[in-house]
Amino acid sequence: MNNPQLDKNGELRHLLSTEGLPARILRDILDRAATFISTAEDDEIRKVPLLHGKSVFNLFFENSTRTRTTFEIAAKRLSADVVNLNIGSSSTSKGETLLDTVDNLCAMRADMFVVRHSASGAAHLVARHVAPNVHVINAGDGRHAHPTQALLDMFTIRHYKKEFHNLRVAIVGDVAHSRVARSQIHALTTLGVPEVRVIAPKTLLPTDVERLGVRVFHNMTQGLQEVDVVMMLRVQNERMQGALLPSAQEYFKYYGLTPEKLAQAKADAIVMHPGPMNRGVEIDSSVADGAQSVILPQVMFGIAVRMAVMSLLAGVRP
Amino acid sequence: MNNPQLDKNGELRHLLSTEGLPARILRDILDRAATFISTAEDDEIRKVPLLHGKSVFNLFFENSTRTRTTFEIAAKRLSADVVNLNIGSSSTSKGETLLDTVDNLCAMRADMFVVRHSASGAAHLVARHVAPNVHVINAGDGRHAHPTQALLDMFTIRHYKKEFHNLRVAIVGDVAHSRVARSQIHALTTLGVPEVRVIAPKTLLPTDVERLGVRVFHNMTQGLQEVDVVMMLRVQNERMQGALLPSAQEYFKYYGLTPEKLAQAKADAIVMHPGPMNRGVEIDSSVADGAQSVILPQVMFGIAVRMAVMSLLAGVRP
Amino acid sequence: MNNPQLDKNGELRHLLSTEGLPARILRDILDRAATFISTAEDDEIRKVPLLHGKSVFNLFFENSTRTRTTFEIAAKRLSADVVNLNIGSSSTSKGETLLDTVDNLCAMRADMFVVRHSASGAAHLVARHVAPNVHVINAGDGRHAHPTQALLDMFTIRHYKKEFHNLRVAIVGDVAHSRVARSQIHALTTLGVPEVRVIAPKTLLPTDVERLGVRVFHNMTQGLQEVDVVMMLRVQNERMQGALLPSAQEYFKYYGLTPEKLAQAKADAIVMHPGPMNRGVEIDSSVADGAQSVILPQVMFGIAVRMAVMSLLAGVRP
Repeated sequence: MNNPQLDKNGELRHLLSTEGLPARILRDILDRAATFISTAEDDEIRKVPLLHGKSVFNLFFENSTRTRTTFEIAAKRLSADVVNLNIGSSSTSKGETLLDTVDNLCAMRADMFVVRHSASGAAHLVARHVAPNVHVINAGDGRHAHPTQALLDMFTIRHYKKEFHNLRVAIVGDVAHSRVARSQIHALTTLGVPEVRVIAPKTLLPTDVERLGVRVFHNMTQGLQEVDVVMMLRVQNERMQGALLPSAQEYFKYYGLTPEKLAQAKADAIVMHPGPMNRGVEIDSSVADGAQSVILPQVMFGIAVRMAVMSLLAGVRP
Repeated sequence: MNNPQLDKNGELRHLLSTEGLPARILRDILDRAATFISTAEDDEIRKVPLLHGKSVFNLFFENSTRTRTTFEIAAKRLSADVVNLNIGSSSTSKGETLLDTVDNLCAMRADMFVVRHSASGAAHLVARHVAPNVHVINAGDGRHAHPTQALLDMFTIRHYKKEFHNLRVAIVGDVAHSRVARSQIHALTTLGVPEVRVIAPKTLLPTDVERLGVRVFHNMTQGLQEVDVVMMLRVQNERMQGALLPSAQEYFKYYGLTPEKLAQAKADAIVMHPGPMNRGVEIDSSVADGAQSVILPQVMFGIAVRMAVMSLLAGVRP
Repeated sequence: MNNPQLDKNGELRHLLSTEGLPARILRDILDRAATFISTAEDDEIRKVPLLHGKSVFNLFFENSTRTRTTFEIAAKRLSADVVNLNIGSSSTSKGETLLDTVDNLCAMRADMFVVRHSASGAAHLVARHVAPNVHVINAGDGRHAHPTQALLDMFTIRHYKKEFHNLRVAIVGDVAHSRVARSQIHALTTLGVPEVRVIAPKTLLPTDVERLGVRVFHNMTQGLQEVDVVMMLRVQNERMQGALLPSAQEYFKYYGLTPEKLAQAKADAIVMHPGPMNRGVEIDSSVADGAQSVILPQVMFGIAVRMAVMSLLAGVRP
């Protein structure tokens, strides 16, 4: 089967998933993102005219102010025109289909769609449908994928650890329902991380998780032994009321990242979280704000990574 | 009575309705729109600095993401600053009157208002109230008018049929409740179309419809005979529950555009729809997506026509 | 205690309240605002590139389309990138704290936050938390402060009355619940207005109001005697249902500004209102639209004052 993300020359046409993306393209995005960050780390990411005159549509069928904001900022720093569409309140509620909406926006000469949808596969559906000169970025589709999150995580790891081939990385939490975890695992293995661990109760792991090339731990103290990177997942509050999870307190006791549990990891291990955090549920505040936390740098790198993806898809050089 | 749309030199000051606009101005808008479309039809509509430094306010008292988006895109391609105001959630809910809201936005140095309102006459009310250097575009008011939709339809017809004076045009559907139909009829007759037909059940026709200069048909097979242009109207779902309309299936049987009914028209007839479409209600998917459909080009032309109207009102030359 | 609004050189770092701001800074803002207004009063406020490449975040935890619009317009006229965040519908509803949200936006390289919140002190909290190069503007926090409103009021007074040291100013209405009144009183006394009056029923006055340096009147006819400036406050409709206020008609009878009551003031007194107005409740339409009203100029000056504050905080010269 053809990879819908690549054109016939093997260049990136859409960013839908980290699954199936060659390491060459992942590294290209990370390298390009680095050019958007000043040498002095706390310097401004400057505005560049790379996408001047281009129209980027944030097509959000699922509300997410934070994610929408990161793409809006990235597009505006590239000087694109940005239009935000919250489609809950729009034509689809008038009976128009998703693809009719996309056709219409293409006819308005969209150059790029950033798509967020609660249904797995929605971004692929849009990508298969658009004209050849239009590009699609998946900003999260159901439980399937969230590739820009995974890419900014890879950028963060490379920033602090320099190499991937000598790392032990642990992903902790609700892997079963997490598009973030899925995209992280594919990116980590493609970039050559030799040992990827997942740490979660059985109820929060997909049945076929070992097939993704990971080691499974149910006990966090064991799972964090000697790891270089701890990637926490967000606990969805709505899961807490169901049968899958005990109370927040119980979850915190067994799978919340505390200084004591973190002490099992290497002394220079970094702590990551995709946000927004549930402090006191999956992570203790002292860790979230502690010396090993790189959670805020992740956010900054996220803007640069999204600028990199957008400019790469548009075929322009920084 | 004075035409509130024209200044004392007969130039366009506001675009409120196609009714009463001279053919000279309609043609001026269409000619100007053509300059915003590249010779190669699928080329980009490029960004131009014509409205740089101007402030366009999208004043939407009625929610319409699609229409708001077309004006937002048009204004941004002209390099204007655009502010979106959904007034349902704003000061009018605090007891402020519509005209106080408009006064305030004028004081903020608005250059142009795009007004959408559920009440017929709202855009006229705003136009009568604003300062002399402020321009108003009606983006749909009640059942009254939707002039930019009619203008993009005229652009589309001229694009495919070259002339107006030799055409037979049919408008099909809920004419009674349609601001689009009213604006289309005025534009078509002003531009010299010799035969405009309306096709609808009696319950969906205004009582005085013949006074608009149209031929009335209740039977679609007869009405579509030898027409050059088929302009479908959108069926409002909310009408379907009332006494005016039978079920969607019944409506489709008698007034839905199918390949069989379309075969009554000329072989090179074009099919238009203002969107969003109710597939399987007023139009069959095979027609909507078929070779005679120009529904997506309508959308593209709509951006150019709105750029034309805005730049004409602002008094700048492309 | 340190003034959190000033840096160690005594320059403005945040604008949180008019309380504690030296007259020098108030006058600096008014002088700067004047440069954004053309000599011809009805001329356009032109777009300037002073904040090109800067990111301004409108962080609205409390809905206010009007106030948000004034800041959006001001920032766009300064060529900043503007991102609107209505935080009711965002991450804080996912359990993220206000400060985590702010941290994240700082990490995205925000240059300026415009904060509106129903809780008094929210903008101070944000200001204490942000990185040294980030600036905070309070756009209204609970009953506490609304400094840009007070500054545009001062600009308006200076515009019409030239000097502050010879004025008698009356503030009329619900002082107890008004962040606007509080900010106005501090600004007026700092700028040297010798007599500031408040006129309200006892139920709508804070208990310690005389400590602010004002004269209290419960009778409007007496309170308006020989004043130069009448500053009306907006009556909150929700107060009308409680025990604090009689009906709208009763309120209008005693505290609504009518031509008869206004006749007690000096013949050249100006009438101001922060908007949106409740016509027929706190102000009669004949006064709101009358010759002494400067309510719409207030709005125009408000854009210039917000441009002044933003450019001053960003450290750029007009």
